[in-house]
Amino acid sequence: MFELRRDPILNSWVIIAPERSLRPNEFAATPVHRASRRCPFCFGNEDETPPAVATYPAEVEADPGAWQVRVVPNRYPAVAPLDSVAPAGPQMDLVSDRHRRNAVGVHEVVIESRDHRTSFAQLSDETAGLAFHAYRDRLRWVRQHTQLPYGQVFKNSGAAAGASIEHIHSQLLAIPYVPPHVAAELAVTQQNWRQTGQCTFCVLLEQELSEESRIVADSAGFVAFCPYASRFPYEVWLLPRRHDACFDRTPDADLLGVAVVIRAVITRLERVLDRPAYNWFVHTAPFDSTAQDHYHWHIEISPRVSAAAGFESGTGCFINPVPPEVAAQRLRESA
Amino acid sequence: MFELRRDPILNSWVIIAPERSLRPNEFAATPVHRASRRCPFCFGNEDETPPAVATYPAEVEADPGAWQVRVVPNRYPAVAPLDSVAPAGPQMDLVSDRHRRNAVGVHEVVIESRDHRTSFAQLSDETAGLAFHAYRDRLRWVRQHTQLPYGQVFKNSGAAAGASIEHIHSQLLAIPYVPPHVAAELAVTQQNWRQTGQCTFCVLLEQELSEESRIVADSAGFVAFCPYASRFPYEVWLLPRRHDACFDRTPDADLLGVAVVIRAVITRLERVLDRPAYNWFVHTAPFDSTAQDHYHWHIEISPRVSAAAGFESGTGCFINPVPPEVAAQRLRESA
Repeated sequence: MFELRRDPILNSWVIIAPERSLRPNEFAATPVHRASRRCPFCFGNEDETPPAVATYPAEVEADPGAWQVRVVPNRYPAVAPLDSVAPAGPQMDLVSDRHRRNAVGVHEVVIESRDHRTSFAQLSDETAGLAFHAYRDRLRWVRQHTQLPYGQVFKNSGAAAGASIEHIHSQLLAIPYVPPHVAAELAVTQQNWRQTGQCTFCVLLEQELSEESRIVADSAGFVAFCPYASRFPYEVWLLPRRHDACFDRTPDADLLGVAVVIRAVITRLERVLDRPAYNWFVHTAPFDSTAQDHYHWHIEISPRVSAAAGFESGTGCFINPVPPEVAAQRLRESA
Repeated sequence: MFELRRDPILNSWVIIAPERSLRPNEFAATPVHRASRRCPFCFGNEDETPPAVATYPAEVEADPGAWQVRVVPNRYPAVAPLDSVAPAGPQMDLVSDRHRRNAVGVHEVVIESRDHRTSFAQLSDETAGLAFHAYRDRLRWVRQHTQLPYGQVFKNSGAAAGASIEHIHSQLLAIPYVPPHVAAELAVTQQNWRQTGQCTFCVLLEQELSEESRIVADSAGFVAFCPYASRFPYEVWLLPRRHDACFDRTPDADLLGVAVVIRAVITRLERVLDRPAYNWFVHTAPFDSTAQDHYHWHIEISPRVSAAAGFESGTGCFINPVPPEVAAQRLRESA
């Protein structure tokens, strides 16, 4: 059973996926009984996962055992595989009056190291760059081979961020609707574009660089800063200086650049916050959108510092006890 | 420093409240040094909190020591007290082009038992009813004495739900804007009202009662069910059968009725899920709204069963591994 159900009050979709509850959890207080206690993501244990759909670097294709980064289907997916039922229609179908659909999509895991690493900061810049190669290529694959409107690349690092396996990895979840937070960004930036002809993110980047107080790290291609209205303590956004709506158009040369800056950010977060759990989310334009001048891809990094966020997730109101200027200064000083 | 900052991308407000990080946390892994280790909410320790703004039952006013439920200002508030700066203007000011405001409001704690109880289910129906008396009266006070548009009543129960003190309590946070989740409900129900002349919640209640499979508990006045598109495992909503937009119009006689049904729900959740952490949220119409036929107050209860919800809170996409029909059946059978 993989169902999409529309909440009649909020008009938003929820994925009902009972199979998801079967996944083992390395972090669980009560150990889960597994056939093998081997880390399923380590080199040599490839039989613990479904066969890879991609491996990196590209030149190892002749020798599959030489992989550094490996992409596999998620064994406990949140959506049914595309070939299991009729594929989802184009996005416009979603506003029809039906409240129940099959939840079909693509759910993959990007294993970001052949060795047992538990922090992205422990990777070399080159291996970290290969992870971003994988994100881009898999998003391109979804764009070219499915009618799904969105591919959400995200990382859960640490149990408090929702990870069930400690070996460093990210996920791609391509679904038949645009995530509400991205949809909200698209709506506001489109309105601003119509009024001013400017990309909101380009203006924001310029103002943050001019203001300086919230900058965490930067390079020729990328800037990381704590956003003015940070919802979480030590929230960090990473933006490319060059305007582009779509992450999956990023050229090879820039993928290493993203990795270098994000590794610097994670290294600083781990120093200041003593290796916090965190999530990151790649926000990119939906595959089916045509007007893209108003959007600008970026990565949002949310450390999970507070014990819990029940109030926040239940109301949509955010209370942040750490001003972003303070967070950015501490992160800069830890470099 | 209590600042409201508007996110320029999402047009939503964030409260920046550094003082909030000073609050002690009974659940913290590293014990917090406090002047006293006494529970600040127990009878006899009233000097650990600011003086009460209300006590219940009403007849104990002559003998303040006989309180069963006690409302006090939050010692570590998320907003500045109303009298500390000029009060917030009416809500229409909020759509102006300013991105920074003083975060002023009311932040109170409802201490729901004189004895050291850690579960709402441990209260008597009568004491539980007094808590709802307090919620209603304090919301009325905010409506009558401030220009704040919204008062959010909520409970964090358990560390994983954001509680920092185990003695059972709820909170009232009245703020200068309507919480985004309530605003979204208002928008959808208003649209449905215009199209059909019906309250969406009244229709929903009728259909859930007819469908039966998601009902958890009910009484002459109230119905609790797992919503069709439940975002979290074992999410439960409690609705009054009688249409009313405003919780703070609830007559005395019905407050006990709410308490009886919600205690039944919490008792069942604790049996099935082994005393989970949970949040509840009272959703009621904003104080400054005039058209209220389309809205219907209710209470949303969200157990915190999953290890974490990083993906959910970062994307607005919800993946729920427990179909609400299964959750409701287990809750009914535990009665």
